[in-house]
Amino acid sequence: MIIVMKAGTATADRDAVLKQIEELGYKPHLIHGTTRDVIGAIGDERGKLILHSIEAMHGVESVLPILKPYKLASREVNRETTRIRVSDTVVIGGDEIIVMAGPCSVESEAQIMESAIAVKAAGAQVLRGGAFKPRTSPYSFQGMEEEGLKLLARARDLTGLPVVTEVINPETAELVAEYADILQIGARNSQNFALLKKVGQLKRPVLLKRGMAMTIQEFLMSAEYILSEGNQQVILCERGIRTFETATRNTLDLSAIPVLRGMTHLPVIADPSHGTGNHHYVAPMAYAAVAAGADGLMIEVHPDPEHASSDGPQSLKPSSFTALMAKLRLFAEAADRRL
Amino acid sequence: MIIVMKAGTATADRDAVLKQIEELGYKPHLIHGTTRDVIGAIGDERGKLILHSIEAMHGVESVLPILKPYKLASREVNRETTRIRVSDTVVIGGDEIIVMAGPCSVESEAQIMESAIAVKAAGAQVLRGGAFKPRTSPYSFQGMEEEGLKLLARARDLTGLPVVTEVINPETAELVAEYADILQIGARNSQNFALLKKVGQLKRPVLLKRGMAMTIQEFLMSAEYILSEGNQQVILCERGIRTFETATRNTLDLSAIPVLRGMTHLPVIADPSHGTGNHHYVAPMAYAAVAAGADGLMIEVHPDPEHASSDGPQSLKPSSFTALMAKLRLFAEAADRRL
Amino acid sequence: MIIVMKAGTATADRDAVLKQIEELGYKPHLIHGTTRDVIGAIGDERGKLILHSIEAMHGVESVLPILKPYKLASREVNRETTRIRVSDTVVIGGDEIIVMAGPCSVESEAQIMESAIAVKAAGAQVLRGGAFKPRTSPYSFQGMEEEGLKLLARARDLTGLPVVTEVINPETAELVAEYADILQIGARNSQNFALLKKVGQLKRPVLLKRGMAMTIQEFLMSAEYILSEGNQQVILCERGIRTFETATRNTLDLSAIPVLRGMTHLPVIADPSHGTGNHHYVAPMAYAAVAAGADGLMIEVHPDPEHASSDGPQSLKPSSFTALMAKLRLFAEAADRRL
Amino acid sequence: MIIVMKAGTATADRDAVLKQIEELGYKPHLIHGTTRDVIGAIGDERGKLILHSIEAMHGVESVLPILKPYKLASREVNRETTRIRVSDTVVIGGDEIIVMAGPCSVESEAQIMESAIAVKAAGAQVLRGGAFKPRTSPYSFQGMEEEGLKLLARARDLTGLPVVTEVINPETAELVAEYADILQIGARNSQNFALLKKVGQLKRPVLLKRGMAMTIQEFLMSAEYILSEGNQQVILCERGIRTFETATRNTLDLSAIPVLRGMTHLPVIADPSHGTGNHHYVAPMAYAAVAAGADGLMIEVHPDPEHASSDGPQSLKPSSFTALMAKLRLFAEAADRRL
Repeated sequence: MIIVMKAGTATADRDAVLKQIEELGYKPHLIHGTTRDVIGAIGDERGKLILHSIEAMHGVESVLPILKPYKLASREVNRETTRIRVSDTVVIGGDEIIVMAGPCSVESEAQIMESAIAVKAAGAQVLRGGAFKPRTSPYSFQGMEEEGLKLLARARDLTGLPVVTEVINPETAELVAEYADILQIGARNSQNFALLKKVGQLKRPVLLKRGMAMTIQEFLMSAEYILSEGNQQVILCERGIRTFETATRNTLDLSAIPVLRGMTHLPVIADPSHGTGNHHYVAPMAYAAVAAGADGLMIEVHPDPEHASSDGPQSLKPSSFTALMAKLRLFAEAADRRL
Repeated sequence: MIIVMKAGTATADRDAVLKQIEELGYKPHLIHGTTRDVIGAIGDERGKLILHSIEAMHGVESVLPILKPYKLASREVNRETTRIRVSDTVVIGGDEIIVMAGPCSVESEAQIMESAIAVKAAGAQVLRGGAFKPRTSPYSFQGMEEEGLKLLARARDLTGLPVVTEVINPETAELVAEYADILQIGARNSQNFALLKKVGQLKRPVLLKRGMAMTIQEFLMSAEYILSEGNQQVILCERGIRTFETATRNTLDLSAIPVLRGMTHLPVIADPSHGTGNHHYVAPMAYAAVAAGADGLMIEVHPDPEHASSDGPQSLKPSSFTALMAKLRLFAEAADRRL
Repeated sequence: MIIVMKAGTATADRDAVLKQIEELGYKPHLIHGTTRDVIGAIGDERGKLILHSIEAMHGVESVLPILKPYKLASREVNRETTRIRVSDTVVIGGDEIIVMAGPCSVESEAQIMESAIAVKAAGAQVLRGGAFKPRTSPYSFQGMEEEGLKLLARARDLTGLPVVTEVINPETAELVAEYADILQIGARNSQNFALLKKVGQLKRPVLLKRGMAMTIQEFLMSAEYILSEGNQQVILCERGIRTFETATRNTLDLSAIPVLRGMTHLPVIADPSHGTGNHHYVAPMAYAAVAAGADGLMIEVHPDPEHASSDGPQSLKPSSFTALMAKLRLFAEAADRRL
Repeated sequence: MIIVMKAGTATADRDAVLKQIEELGYKPHLIHGTTRDVIGAIGDERGKLILHSIEAMHGVESVLPILKPYKLASREVNRETTRIRVSDTVVIGGDEIIVMAGPCSVESEAQIMESAIAVKAAGAQVLRGGAFKPRTSPYSFQGMEEEGLKLLARARDLTGLPVVTEVINPETAELVAEYADILQIGARNSQNFALLKKVGQLKRPVLLKRGMAMTIQEFLMSAEYILSEGNQQVILCERGIRTFETATRNTLDLSAIPVLRGMTHLPVIADPSHGTGNHHYVAPMAYAAVAAGADGLMIEVHPDPEHASSDGPQSLKPSSFTALMAKLRLFAEAADRRL
């Protein structure tokens, strides 16, 4: 941590800062500048955010952190990308691009079965579908809940596709874990720390979505919550951030993929359906995500988008998804990956 | 809802849209324009987001919602601002500006007692203090939990100040409600719908903070979750949104105050401490919030900010808070309010 | 344009709005809703923003535009993507992906010649280099000005590469046009309407960069300024927008590429160097841009980034650029394009 | 500037950085940390952005600037707020709150005269009105140009109010300066450096508006362009930044006022009309701006907003403006200012 003193600060104020740094267990290094002093306090800053309290001291202009506040998620801990085994044949973080596809919500047995068969035929390796739905409006369809989980399990039995579905509160996390192969934490819960801790205690891979106003560093801090509870199987998912642009539902931040690649060993996927909110843009952004280095994709596919209970405008029809997968294969190869 | 058709759309596509609108229970109104058709589908759109599925149909360029998706929170329901009685003497939403002050976290009996006495002496009407702390880092201080709640209750006994403190998950909500006079929902949980429903079922006023990436309309939808469960006592709190500007921790969106005033009957307060993240800016932004029409303020005050466990840089010392309150009185009077 | 009236508006207020619409030359269509009236006023809204003045009338809740405010840039005008011929062999908007590469600033004859030879050898088709530099700080290097233009022309003579360089004010636009093959309008001048009009009057292709806070619709309005002055040769360039994320210098909004593809016939390229601000992220984002459908790229290459006068951190060394181009070819093929 | 080295960097790479720092004329200070080295390079960083090129070197994780890049605008240069004398009676930056009011555009002699008389009667000290209008659409009204300037001068003769009007390009800057008392630089030109330099060479106070995506530091850098050309009379104007919130046209960042107060000696005003885009919100945000410490306000007033050529929805009628001024006086007094 670097403490920048104000120009013309009294020596007593500077000395108080030096003393405080020592009390906090650091060795301060004083650098005299031409117009002001700068103090270096190098050490393990993690878990010691209290050092920030120095900002409140007299004569301090600013305090700049140096070390990353996350440990277990850091690329320094693990030079290789972590491979997360979801089933005997599905591994996320390896050479193969993993595509998770299916409807936004489970709506009926017919709908989820039809979806599962269609996405499998097109080459998807994981089935997605929401049973518990976090909806902005209390008047919107909130999901089929446990009945939806059962239908997902039945679709897995039918097709062999492992299942990813969302967990929306700590109370129902274990229930969801009984049925699901991957537990999804949605964007709106990405800093619901009680929930993060809970899934950190379960033995299931977790798909963590980035929050709409979450910096990449905060994203890794949320992953750190799960990792620090003992669950090392975390998949990060870029799904768009909120910006001033309204032509798309969110702004899919694909640069987060190479940035995360440098910062963390955790695998990273992208969700172009939520990222754009418009089925016309899903295919180009899916190709772009793989070109940017994504380990996988999450894509909404619905047999009848015009009658979907949620997110119809961003869902692909099975035929469009099949075409997407065919072309995606070419991009995967260009990226030295398989699909 | 207005459906704008693409220029040159086939009649069959347009008719399919008209049919779909009727199937959804609306009466469509077709307007022939010079270059394209526009269809009006007027009715109660709330709870029928499925209408959005029309966006996925052939020939549809865009679908524009018209009615607000919230009902109970709407100013149309209640022309007068709702008054929320927190104690025999404290009412939020009336003529009096209510100031909630205290430390970010409860750290010890001495600290919270000293804080309570100081903020009361300066004129605050409610004591704030966190017992359960949602922290970005799993390695940061997470709060004193139930022990902290007990200390808050003791501070209330000592000073007579009602207490506001944060609820971070549904499981501990009832525990918090045993001790607290107002239940706070933090910005990171502002779309934690399971938690919103839970506090909607309790008999305590709720202070709902705006999320960092939350539009004002979404803010009211989150309030609607609480209201629709039967709890009518919701206080909205503007606490800063996330923008590109880094000179302040967040950007305190004071224009949200008059905007909310027009849209909802719920009282609105502002939190200049989290909104700016810097104790130098708290006083001017507190004055500005009252000038913009806020019904109250939430301000962090700590007897020793340099040794605070959290948020030291944005906490005021009691002496600064006393000066702020003296000057705030003048602004309250200019705004035809009392303090 | 759709005018939504407030619930319970007096008939006189509604009639005043109807009258005003007629005075403005539109035919109003009144739709009675269950809780409020809605008025459609269909016609050519372009150039008649005055219709917005209706927002100021009594009883009006909101006014929703329907038609796009741009004409000449619209995809409706031209179903095929416009091909812009820069030289006998370089056409932007066709099958070939066009890569413009070179240093941020022209710094010396040796530097620009070395750069030009290197980028040509790697397969770039256009040489970039700034002679007039718009710099945030008045104390930063402001460019070699006309001397820089001469060096660019000499580099073109040497290599045969056409040259793109920035125009920063109307006064020097003609001077730049004497030397350059493509006139670049920088992000900070993207709403400098006097400059847009000026380059609209010149006979040179224009590369228009998106402003940092510019919506896609505003981007097309800026293009419309150039088109409406008679210059049809406009290339759009996505170069990152400003968001809360600080891990990258800007957030490269690649979804703008498919969005623009649907809205306009103008070709679209991407600048991953400015978009990310970090040379580590340039290659993956270049691949991603082509996968998303970009017609070309603009990439900063410097023979010695550590001693660059500007933008060193985001410049590639020639060897890295050569590697990028080799791999980019694979992505171009996957996208059914050539390089 | 602080250079943070990557963990495990080779000594040769570190030494290369130390050498480069020395070559750039700084004295490096090496601090050995437990996991990585940190190098301090203290000196005058301004005008030496080249130091940033170190970011491109091997082993460098990040480079953190310490000193502010602006000089002349800094509060360190001048502890007192600069007072800018606009006329014999109008001084900006002193005790008196200065209100600039009038229509968005000059539309006719009758309109500007009526406006001038009305705003003077209500207590405004400066008349605003646009003659050259930078409009997003080329099809919108572009202003009356020189004819508009003449009408403004006539309104000044009639009322004695000095006049502020916008300059949109270097070519017409001198023409505008012949008529205007204050030269306004609009938000879209806030990084049009050619224009900033030009008004820096004129002998007229400049009102510089903050750009929509401009950080506060960049705002001061744009002021520095004007100051460094010799014109010390710069008034800063906060007018809203672009965020995700669409309930207001922009988000008026009132916290910029106390932030700027700490960073610069230049006076700061606010524009609640453009900041909110809605006449309903102008009064509360005007009061809030003064409470936050603004030295003045810029407010759009139009005798007939429903027929305004531009910005009707955000313009106040004279009667509303008169009411605003009466109440504003109370807030000015609470803030220890006069109106």
